[in-house]
Amino acid sequence: MAETTTANPPVDFRTEPAGYKHWKLTFDGPVATLAMDVREDSGLRPGYELKLNSYDLGVDIELYDALQRLRFEHPEVGAVILTSGKERVFCAGANIRMLGQSSHAWKVNFCKFTNETRNAIEEASSESKQVWLTAVNGPCAGGGYELALATEWIVMADDGNTAVSLPEVPLLAVLPGTGGLTRLIDKRKVRRDRADFFCTTEEGVKGARAVEWSLVDEVVPRSRMPETVTQRARELAAKTDRPRAARGVALTPLARTIEGDRIAYTHVRCALDRRRGIAEITTAAPAAPPSDPAAALAQGAAFWPLAVARELDDLILHLRTNEEQIGLWVFRTTGAADVVEAHDRLLLGHQGDWFLREVRLYLKRVLKRIDVSSRSVFALIEPGSCFAGTLLELALAADRSYMIDGTRPGEPTPPATLRLTAANFGAYPTINGLSRLAARFLKEPGRVDDLKGRVGQDLDAAAAAEAGLVTFTPDDLDWEDEVRQALEARAAFSPDALTGMEASLRFGGPETLETKIFGRLSAWQNWIFQRPNAVGPKGALQVYGTGERSDFDRRRV
Amino acid sequence: MAETTTANPPVDFRTEPAGYKHWKLTFDGPVATLAMDVREDSGLRPGYELKLNSYDLGVDIELYDALQRLRFEHPEVGAVILTSGKERVFCAGANIRMLGQSSHAWKVNFCKFTNETRNAIEEASSESKQVWLTAVNGPCAGGGYELALATEWIVMADDGNTAVSLPEVPLLAVLPGTGGLTRLIDKRKVRRDRADFFCTTEEGVKGARAVEWSLVDEVVPRSRMPETVTQRARELAAKTDRPRAARGVALTPLARTIEGDRIAYTHVRCALDRRRGIAEITTAAPAAPPSDPAAALAQGAAFWPLAVARELDDLILHLRTNEEQIGLWVFRTTGAADVVEAHDRLLLGHQGDWFLREVRLYLKRVLKRIDVSSRSVFALIEPGSCFAGTLLELALAADRSYMIDGTRPGEPTPPATLRLTAANFGAYPTINGLSRLAARFLKEPGRVDDLKGRVGQDLDAAAAAEAGLVTFTPDDLDWEDEVRQALEARAAFSPDALTGMEASLRFGGPETLETKIFGRLSAWQNWIFQRPNAVGPKGALQVYGTGERSDFDRRRV
Repeated sequence: MAETTTANPPVDFRTEPAGYKHWKLTFDGPVATLAMDVREDSGLRPGYELKLNSYDLGVDIELYDALQRLRFEHPEVGAVILTSGKERVFCAGANIRMLGQSSHAWKVNFCKFTNETRNAIEEASSESKQVWLTAVNGPCAGGGYELALATEWIVMADDGNTAVSLPEVPLLAVLPGTGGLTRLIDKRKVRRDRADFFCTTEEGVKGARAVEWSLVDEVVPRSRMPETVTQRARELAAKTDRPRAARGVALTPLARTIEGDRIAYTHVRCALDRRRGIAEITTAAPAAPPSDPAAALAQGAAFWPLAVARELDDLILHLRTNEEQIGLWVFRTTGAADVVEAHDRLLLGHQGDWFLREVRLYLKRVLKRIDVSSRSVFALIEPGSCFAGTLLELALAADRSYMIDGTRPGEPTPPATLRLTAANFGAYPTINGLSRLAARFLKEPGRVDDLKGRVGQDLDAAAAAEAGLVTFTPDDLDWEDEVRQALEARAAFSPDALTGMEASLRFGGPETLETKIFGRLSAWQNWIFQRPNAVGPKGALQVYGTGERSDFDRRRV
Repeated sequence: MAETTTANPPVDFRTEPAGYKHWKLTFDGPVATLAMDVREDSGLRPGYELKLNSYDLGVDIELYDALQRLRFEHPEVGAVILTSGKERVFCAGANIRMLGQSSHAWKVNFCKFTNETRNAIEEASSESKQVWLTAVNGPCAGGGYELALATEWIVMADDGNTAVSLPEVPLLAVLPGTGGLTRLIDKRKVRRDRADFFCTTEEGVKGARAVEWSLVDEVVPRSRMPETVTQRARELAAKTDRPRAARGVALTPLARTIEGDRIAYTHVRCALDRRRGIAEITTAAPAAPPSDPAAALAQGAAFWPLAVARELDDLILHLRTNEEQIGLWVFRTTGAADVVEAHDRLLLGHQGDWFLREVRLYLKRVLKRIDVSSRSVFALIEPGSCFAGTLLELALAADRSYMIDGTRPGEPTPPATLRLTAANFGAYPTINGLSRLAARFLKEPGRVDDLKGRVGQDLDAAAAAEAGLVTFTPDDLDWEDEVRQALEARAAFSPDALTGMEASLRFGGPETLETKIFGRLSAWQNWIFQRPNAVGPKGALQVYGTGERSDFDRRRV
């Protein structure tokens, strides 16, 4: 199997509309249209053609960028029509040759990113009030249908040719990789026996049956598609609470330097320790917050919470995709807790402000990326740090945290403290819908209410341990040894076992569409992506398109 | 890797206390004690010794038998003490050499069965009011601790030597295979950072910290263990609603014949079609029901619902373990719906009856085994069948059902009908806690209430389709072709893709400890059981005990 991730230059997730190869974004007042029009010859990697509006990671990076810009740069948009720019096909899903030549890690990471983008589409609809709908104007298969499933309304052409389908099982011996099975059952609540038939039927379902089975919301003659879709979009846009006349915030190019094993942004920097497989990630607080929402808006992309969200987002995607051997991410912070708390007050104190809402939602998404990353995450809380409010979420997202009890020998910096702010009590729910504090104290939910009384206090190591906010608090004499041993022990374990363990321990409590997708569906997909029936020399994914027939081991596991 | 399942004689799940090699079951009024005392030289397969009270499938088959007999043969028992019969160890978990030499399918199937048994222990505590507790009287590692986690109270000796641990990740590069991670987080609600530390610490946690972290419920000096455990058991037994003076029902030896490709019990028979990979399973209704609960009790193991539960249970376990290449189970029924409905009335009409409750709970467990089996399940509803009430659950458990609309050409039997009884509305919740009807109509919960009005009616194909109870209703002319094509298409798909797809479609709606264990944890475990870091030539599971060090691929997936 070609090792796509190592033989090629690193993937860059930064792009902008002027550079889009595969999407066309147009605007008509409160309605935007995002048309998929994939350039066959512009795959991210050599070796495959993106036929029939099929996609690879490069196509999805542009989709993610478009989604972000629609939210930040276009406050006036209340509805987004997702459709195809091709005449005869909506979308054939993920490119099969690309999957066939990709490493296991590449496939899994690709599916994770595409899943996160579809979840962000749903969040745009439900929380940003920028509601997505789909115009299925041609055959819509696999990942194409999964894209439609992530939107709130699906209109399909009734033309004898257009159908929705999930042909992965019969055609490729893998699962739909982007939440399709979960959304069929748990979002659209398709009856499971019908879903079973649908998912084993290459040609899919069209026309009235697709509506009766709840696979799409309406079918209309092809001639009436534009009119119907526009009308639905206007109806949805009319319900938005986004401001019609506000100025958007331009997501200006993100400054990043990579020099050797150091990656630096404005507020976030990262040092890679390749020998030990560790990334040390430090987030810095800024000097002072803007005085009010108008001042924050005037800062635009330089507004610290937005800048930090963008920097961490890019870093996480970079590390996941380009640094597979770095298995442990260690989070540190530096700066003044007061400034972080002041930003939190600004972010959360103006619930009607569209821009501040977007920034908070973006931070939420970035923190959730950490939750679902297949990397161990530790937080180190040291003198000079500012784990307060939004930045404290990094420590609460960690698998484990260490806080030094005392000062470092010979250093004048006062002992480390933590600080809770209002941001820790629901602003950034994790994928199970709970705040990280609530998820932490499943056994004693009353502790969360108690902690509300401590908002704004500086908690030293003893107080933080007593409050249950940190895992271990070694004193200054033991600190270096204990932390070093913990990092080295972690780095020595089997990466796969850690991934499975962390995925199992991170998502306690209630389940949501997202936990089902990342916790369960992804695990089955990962398993199948390892099975010879899919990826062996005679596996369905390998022989697809060669004319050869796949040869299955018939034993059920 | 040795293919344990094919080179050896079939596994027989039937046993009885006189034949136990590994467990000692004793009684003291309302308290039973089940002591694990594994015979090292009596592994189910050659090639490993069951040292340190470690277990293999043979040990677990006896545990399952003991659990069943405690429930049916000992109505007087209200509490069960699980402990070790060895001096120096409680239980070291699943035998590692056994796992190392087992095929992937064997490992996965072994974990599934052990999981089901632990779930049945929890059901005994919560629904049979026969509450299990554990006396941890020596080191308790991996699967040993997972056994303890399945009980409602854990007392641990505080002797400097006894600890609980889940050393799978650091020691073997696999996950705890029997629900340990899920029960830590979702049952005992251990804080996730502490769980993270605990699961990466070979030596485990003992003494006061084990209580503080909620890993056990109490620690007591070794000298006070017997007295404390007995007292806790008596307290738990005092709360039971089981009758002190009732006579138990002996689970007499289960009659089964296997001749070539035919397996026959009294009421259930099975024909294997090895060429197509299909098992055709027919369940027959009996002649007439007993008149009242006393008459049912007098029938004992011959009481039809109990006999059917035992026969289906044994057949499912046999097919899962010994017939890996049979990927599709087709359920049929034969007999009179009136008799099935009369049995349902008896089963459900006497809520205070301990025996009828046990029979219902057993049927519930058997139906759940179907839900979590990695086999496709179809139901064929034909003239002469009796898919009514309890037996209708077989059709509702199926991935898909076909009901013939009309009679078979040239046959005098009247057209097939279905019949709902009270048993379809909550008597047999599936693993997500919903009735199969409620899980079927997630989109339209009101339909379940509507269907209550049709209890007792014979629904022909048109009515059954209208009610949403069957998938397809081909007429008599199309029946043979349509069913044959559906069976053959199913048999041609990749077994792995079907397993992942079915696991994703079967468990919509709410989540429980069980859905998390079978839907998510098992999928991660399956994945890891495929990864070279665990099972490759240098994988941790393979080199364990050889003195060699495992050599990990450090890339994170």
